[in-house]
Amino acid sequence: MSITADVVDTVLGLRREVAGLHRHLTDYGLVVWTAGNVSARVPGHDLLVIKPSGVAYDDLTPENMVVCDLDGRVVEGEHAPSSDTEAQAYVYRHLPHVGGVVHTHSTFATAWAARGEPVPCVLTMCADEFGGEIPVGPFAIIGDDSIGRGIVETLRGSRSPAVLMRNHGVFTVGPTARAAVKAAVMCEDVARTVHHARALGTPVPIEQSAVDALFDRYQNVYGQR
Amino acid sequence: MSITADVVDTVLGLRREVAGLHRHLTDYGLVVWTAGNVSARVPGHDLLVIKPSGVAYDDLTPENMVVCDLDGRVVEGEHAPSSDTEAQAYVYRHLPHVGGVVHTHSTFATAWAARGEPVPCVLTMCADEFGGEIPVGPFAIIGDDSIGRGIVETLRGSRSPAVLMRNHGVFTVGPTARAAVKAAVMCEDVARTVHHARALGTPVPIEQSAVDALFDRYQNVYGQR
Amino acid sequence: MSITADVVDTVLGLRREVAGLHRHLTDYGLVVWTAGNVSARVPGHDLLVIKPSGVAYDDLTPENMVVCDLDGRVVEGEHAPSSDTEAQAYVYRHLPHVGGVVHTHSTFATAWAARGEPVPCVLTMCADEFGGEIPVGPFAIIGDDSIGRGIVETLRGSRSPAVLMRNHGVFTVGPTARAAVKAAVMCEDVARTVHHARALGTPVPIEQSAVDALFDRYQNVYGQR
Amino acid sequence: MSITADVVDTVLGLRREVAGLHRHLTDYGLVVWTAGNVSARVPGHDLLVIKPSGVAYDDLTPENMVVCDLDGRVVEGEHAPSSDTEAQAYVYRHLPHVGGVVHTHSTFATAWAARGEPVPCVLTMCADEFGGEIPVGPFAIIGDDSIGRGIVETLRGSRSPAVLMRNHGVFTVGPTARAAVKAAVMCEDVARTVHHARALGTPVPIEQSAVDALFDRYQNVYGQR
Repeated sequence: MSITADVVDTVLGLRREVAGLHRHLTDYGLVVWTAGNVSARVPGHDLLVIKPSGVAYDDLTPENMVVCDLDGRVVEGEHAPSSDTEAQAYVYRHLPHVGGVVHTHSTFATAWAARGEPVPCVLTMCADEFGGEIPVGPFAIIGDDSIGRGIVETLRGSRSPAVLMRNHGVFTVGPTARAAVKAAVMCEDVARTVHHARALGTPVPIEQSAVDALFDRYQNVYGQR
Repeated sequence: MSITADVVDTVLGLRREVAGLHRHLTDYGLVVWTAGNVSARVPGHDLLVIKPSGVAYDDLTPENMVVCDLDGRVVEGEHAPSSDTEAQAYVYRHLPHVGGVVHTHSTFATAWAARGEPVPCVLTMCADEFGGEIPVGPFAIIGDDSIGRGIVETLRGSRSPAVLMRNHGVFTVGPTARAAVKAAVMCEDVARTVHHARALGTPVPIEQSAVDALFDRYQNVYGQR
Repeated sequence: MSITADVVDTVLGLRREVAGLHRHLTDYGLVVWTAGNVSARVPGHDLLVIKPSGVAYDDLTPENMVVCDLDGRVVEGEHAPSSDTEAQAYVYRHLPHVGGVVHTHSTFATAWAARGEPVPCVLTMCADEFGGEIPVGPFAIIGDDSIGRGIVETLRGSRSPAVLMRNHGVFTVGPTARAAVKAAVMCEDVARTVHHARALGTPVPIEQSAVDALFDRYQNVYGQR
Repeated sequence: MSITADVVDTVLGLRREVAGLHRHLTDYGLVVWTAGNVSARVPGHDLLVIKPSGVAYDDLTPENMVVCDLDGRVVEGEHAPSSDTEAQAYVYRHLPHVGGVVHTHSTFATAWAARGEPVPCVLTMCADEFGGEIPVGPFAIIGDDSIGRGIVETLRGSRSPAVLMRNHGVFTVGPTARAAVKAAVMCEDVARTVHHARALGTPVPIEQSAVDALFDRYQNVYGQR
């Protein structure tokens, strides 16, 4: 796999976009040190653009992003790619509608993940963005396909663009890398608010028909057309 | 409804004010991504100025604010208005003393809202600003008048400028948009402090006569005359 | 009471210092909107310098600080002084070693105050700075001497430079305004950490002899001589 | 002990590095006022570079860092060194692989320390960085070797680069000062997430074999080679 002439400009744009989107992870406090990353699929090609491993967020540039094929092998770049590259490549291989993936260990989402407990859908904002509870994926150890498989299997059974990997952290997906970043921001916000709601009692459930109506409207009407 | 010559300057000033006030929502961490907004009534006219839907806070300018009539129809502006416009228009139609409305999903206020539980008035700051507990409005789904009606009915039964809409978030009102923003900031601060007070035991109640005295003084003496 | 020629420069310096110290209250998140203030005694004179009432922190300048006598009457300044001026003036009248006073409603300290519960001394940092638990003062309503009296009586019975006024917030004192600001910062930090310690169990007590030894060393050895 | 000609440049570089690394402690909110510090060993010499005592983080410069010998006596510098110098010197004397030490009272780590309770290893991030639970050291009072001894004895019985000193705060070590800072950042992040996980139930344990595999991989494969 190599970068053919027709895709050079697209890759350049995605290097800029992926590098820049990490700013949201730090601004919203979803990551510390170097523990979290964004990637984007190169549309129409079996390629992805991802953060280099262990590089500080302040030092990210379009140039040090890494381009890999969908088996996680480096195609272009001076650095080793994120240690989550294999998991994310697996997601791109198996979910063709996914254009971006984000991984964080954001505090409250990861607290739910540590208990292996989904975040119940008790906020309209959760119905809007996640279409129901935020589901939990299996415990899986880095080093083979098990993280990627756990993400894909969990997302396939849900409308949610976010999955809480047990004892680990959050993976979110979206049609674009920006949409996956948004899902990561909303996931932590919902996980935090529901955590505090539960800490002092029992949140009121929302009926399934209302969840469905909210999800449908938000996916189809919200924002600028 | 259109923007008549005599109101052009007022609208221009309100576009600047409304755009600028969103900075407080982000500075105090009351909103994430694009989920929250400020509006202002155009005094003496059946018009309001509001945030465009789904536009990032960093991208807000006086120019991309949207002017609507009090049925929520766009009168001036390139963008679709906030999806909360109908609810806010309802408030302006039914509460003539209201000059500004703010909507957030700020964390702790929304946590109380998720349980459908008012914030008890156990802080002098709560007596000052809210004149008693911060009340809870009904569960209401976006798409008809039910959110606006829930806000108006709840506020009419209370001295509070803030209402916690069940499973949803916060709406605040004020004589100006700035006052509504202040109420949103104070609402989250009070909701957070009382949350933590309750987490380790039972806050001491404040007698009603003291609540009344504090509210009266704060509304009439505080600040610059 | 007026500002005599020999004290003009001192007052000018204190206007700058008091205005500038408010930055720590906002940087450490101890205050929202305009709810908190710093004052300083004019050494050797029955005067104090304090924040104007209801003015935003971003708008504070040396010029808009207010100079009052120790009965709280304005001696110099265009603005109404903080509504806490009478309470702080009472402190300066009755505690001659106090050179600065700070008032905040910082979240965790105020949460303990809402329960009327002192913060137990279970951290070496608390022994260092407060010499024991952080005590609670009475419920007192603004408008007469009762807040000032509550502060003074509580501080007289304690080594702590901070008092949690019940259902209200924090007042701290120090030999200088800067020292009172430091006490306000440390008070919230200790109140927050002990809150979280208590949320999951029972903190281990520290023996009184160790508290005494820590307090003595910190007051006499720490920092630059 | 003095600074010989061959080490002048190394010391200069470490003054810059140590002064600069404090920025991470403030950026991540691990410290308030002046309560926390970073030091570095001068490699191959019985010297360390450390923060001056009681100096504000904004005022730290390479010039006001203090060089001490490994008994904590000042060798070069105008200021008194951090009051934690003796404890840190003890660590350098007894743990030759340690090149940097950090001390904080970061909120959640210190909350576990106040209960004398280790942070259980229920997150893959904890297995990665700490190789198991984050252990608790004894209660020890400043003024003799007891803090240093407590740190060294606890770290010798663990793979963790962080120790929670009971009722006090956190000490972390690393091959470099930067690695010790990273451990301090990760320690607070893990302590916070596990705190919130435990607040609403029981985190799922991770099997020892998985902890071992994660620790081994992270220490040997992560980051740029």
